[in-house]
Amino acid sequence: MASSGFRPLDDKSLIEYIKATPALSSKLANQLDGLQIKEVGDGNLNFVYIVISSSGSFVIKQALPYIRCIGESWPMTKERAYFEATALREQRRWCSDHVPEVYHFDREMALIGMRYLEPPHIILRKGLIAGIEYPLLAEHMSEFMARTLFFTSLLYHDTTEHKRAVAEFCGNVELCRLTEQVVFSDPYKVSQYNRWTSPYLDRDAEAVREDNILKLEVAELKSMFCERSQALVHGDLHTGSVMVTPDSTQVIDPEFGFYGPMGFDIGAFLGNLILAYFAQDGHADQVNDRKTYKEWILKAIEQTWNLFHKKFTALWDEHRNGSGEAYLPEIYNNSELQLLTQKKYMQGLLHDTLGFGAAKMIRRIVGVAHVEDFESIVDASKRANCERQALVFAKMLLKERRKFQAITEVVLAVQQEQS
Amino acid sequence: MASSGFRPLDDKSLIEYIKATPALSSKLANQLDGLQIKEVGDGNLNFVYIVISSSGSFVIKQALPYIRCIGESWPMTKERAYFEATALREQRRWCSDHVPEVYHFDREMALIGMRYLEPPHIILRKGLIAGIEYPLLAEHMSEFMARTLFFTSLLYHDTTEHKRAVAEFCGNVELCRLTEQVVFSDPYKVSQYNRWTSPYLDRDAEAVREDNILKLEVAELKSMFCERSQALVHGDLHTGSVMVTPDSTQVIDPEFGFYGPMGFDIGAFLGNLILAYFAQDGHADQVNDRKTYKEWILKAIEQTWNLFHKKFTALWDEHRNGSGEAYLPEIYNNSELQLLTQKKYMQGLLHDTLGFGAAKMIRRIVGVAHVEDFESIVDASKRANCERQALVFAKMLLKERRKFQAITEVVLAVQQEQS
Repeated sequence: MASSGFRPLDDKSLIEYIKATPALSSKLANQLDGLQIKEVGDGNLNFVYIVISSSGSFVIKQALPYIRCIGESWPMTKERAYFEATALREQRRWCSDHVPEVYHFDREMALIGMRYLEPPHIILRKGLIAGIEYPLLAEHMSEFMARTLFFTSLLYHDTTEHKRAVAEFCGNVELCRLTEQVVFSDPYKVSQYNRWTSPYLDRDAEAVREDNILKLEVAELKSMFCERSQALVHGDLHTGSVMVTPDSTQVIDPEFGFYGPMGFDIGAFLGNLILAYFAQDGHADQVNDRKTYKEWILKAIEQTWNLFHKKFTALWDEHRNGSGEAYLPEIYNNSELQLLTQKKYMQGLLHDTLGFGAAKMIRRIVGVAHVEDFESIVDASKRANCERQALVFAKMLLKERRKFQAITEVVLAVQQEQS
Repeated sequence: MASSGFRPLDDKSLIEYIKATPALSSKLANQLDGLQIKEVGDGNLNFVYIVISSSGSFVIKQALPYIRCIGESWPMTKERAYFEATALREQRRWCSDHVPEVYHFDREMALIGMRYLEPPHIILRKGLIAGIEYPLLAEHMSEFMARTLFFTSLLYHDTTEHKRAVAEFCGNVELCRLTEQVVFSDPYKVSQYNRWTSPYLDRDAEAVREDNILKLEVAELKSMFCERSQALVHGDLHTGSVMVTPDSTQVIDPEFGFYGPMGFDIGAFLGNLILAYFAQDGHADQVNDRKTYKEWILKAIEQTWNLFHKKFTALWDEHRNGSGEAYLPEIYNNSELQLLTQKKYMQGLLHDTLGFGAAKMIRRIVGVAHVEDFESIVDASKRANCERQALVFAKMLLKERRKFQAITEVVLAVQQEQS
């Protein structure tokens, strides 16, 4: 493979690149005639090409040194591709059922070649907007989160491997900074990037910027995000980073990956499910009032956390005598104490999850990047009503998160917000 | 300078080394005749030489690849000298009044040449045992802690420099692991290294190993120690790492330095002052009942925290519009909110401080490394009584730390423990 320096690929140069790269061309049985190449075009940050031949397929993802959806005016290191590839491989190591395989990574080109998630895989968010139930979603996502978070935490790592991994992902600082800005800062101040459904939510957006208690709580979450190296988090685990069929759930796009608080991932996922819930009324019509679907979403939220809890603590029990250095078996040596420590740990994790989940909801309503769940509601007044309900709920959740003892209480509070 | 590879120095080869090293020989005006070299001999971990000539002086500290006081059976990377030199320079950058100057560092030789803290400088711990009052101690130590912790935290750092520095100090993992073991693990389990004043404290040591609530709280502190990169902490800030005269306070030996929770440093210092307090009855005699001195120690504890609080929040106010990214001024934009955030931050820091301080006390009574404050009490029964009081207090403090709102309440509790 002849690669010298970075160059952005296009349909044509991509073919040359594939020809010169055995790890890719072999996936097509070295048969490159009649190759179909399609630029996906909906990537927020990167260029994504689907490459299909009669004998195989893959996806090529190339990071350019700026944020695609904004343009060259917002520079962003293409080194993010390195962290994405590294995170994908690490997550697949622990959860191969739900993470696509990386076939090839070229650091200089900031280019990843990976499995093409063939139809009927669609982005989960689109499925949620369409009102499709995914009976295995909670099972799969709880599996992904329990395994990737457990095996990269000090419950499994010894200190030496943990600090090595933490240090490596400190290099992904530009992406961490972006999160800090768009999740924990911009929504709480006047920013050129913020937007909301105006004029309906003008007062609501202002209220967020003037809410001292909310800002006090957000500061705590931001500190945790910046300072706490608990596990390798995906870093952007919303419903747009998950591809699904009724049988398959695949988590993609961990370019924001770093060692951070576990609750940031779990919160991102649950928070986006709650957003999907509050958006349903905007998608209801005479054919489908979405009532049943809303119940299913709540069930998915409840099951995801409860299954996560079950799987995570099961892994903990299973590896109690392993290399993890957080709770040495000679110290945590009786079942009462083991129960107490797990209960305290999981309670803290639930509160982190609710806090981060709420922050992720708020930023999707009054920050720079919105979600299709709401954006696809054409009637602005109707959309604003949905968004306001979600915002009111998220503000309450962020402030009152420590009062919730179980996910059922959270689900109940979601329902009450709408009644 | 001809250095190739590592070799342990002795009095003789040290002279050759100095000759070949302009940064050192120049400190002696290149006049090496009649040089006095004295190996200090009381270093727990390293070899320390005092070098004096008629025209100058310095100290040479060399790390060997094991722990000196235990021997080659406990290997320990000599790379710790690199982190010590790096931490010394960083701390001196922010607090030159209380950190000695590094003249020379040789990474391959794991060797630091630095200012000799000339007499009457003595180790603070020895002064506390001798019953000497240091009227400027609280002023100086609060200055050291406020400045070194503030300027290496996200209150001053932007995320980029913070993550770079965090990553670098992840390399000091062997020393972090040693702390994890001797502070957070060994005292709570049966370990060949543990010792205590036997048989008097046999039952007390056992009680520590059987106290579920204590272990639950220690786990939380250990997680914070391992996961939270709040600031560059000294990592071993007990009263043996401070050299004093009535006018001068110098903090040395930051080889355990890394990005960790601020409370670990403040707690180490205050916890060791509390140990010094509980040891006083063992040093009392007909000439000096130590009552006045005990009052002075309590005053020093109270003043250290209160001055730290004052200086730290003053730095925060002063740099509110600086590069620190934790609390952006556009968000934390009114005085009520600024007060709220500081109050919450400092309250959390007090609780961390008390927790870590208590853990540091406990490990000095039932763990591997004891303190001269107690060790110098010859009568074992008397020593055990002093140690038991300190242990009972520390256990209470660790469990109940969140109930304390101010340092005066802590000081009151210390006094009540003895009445």
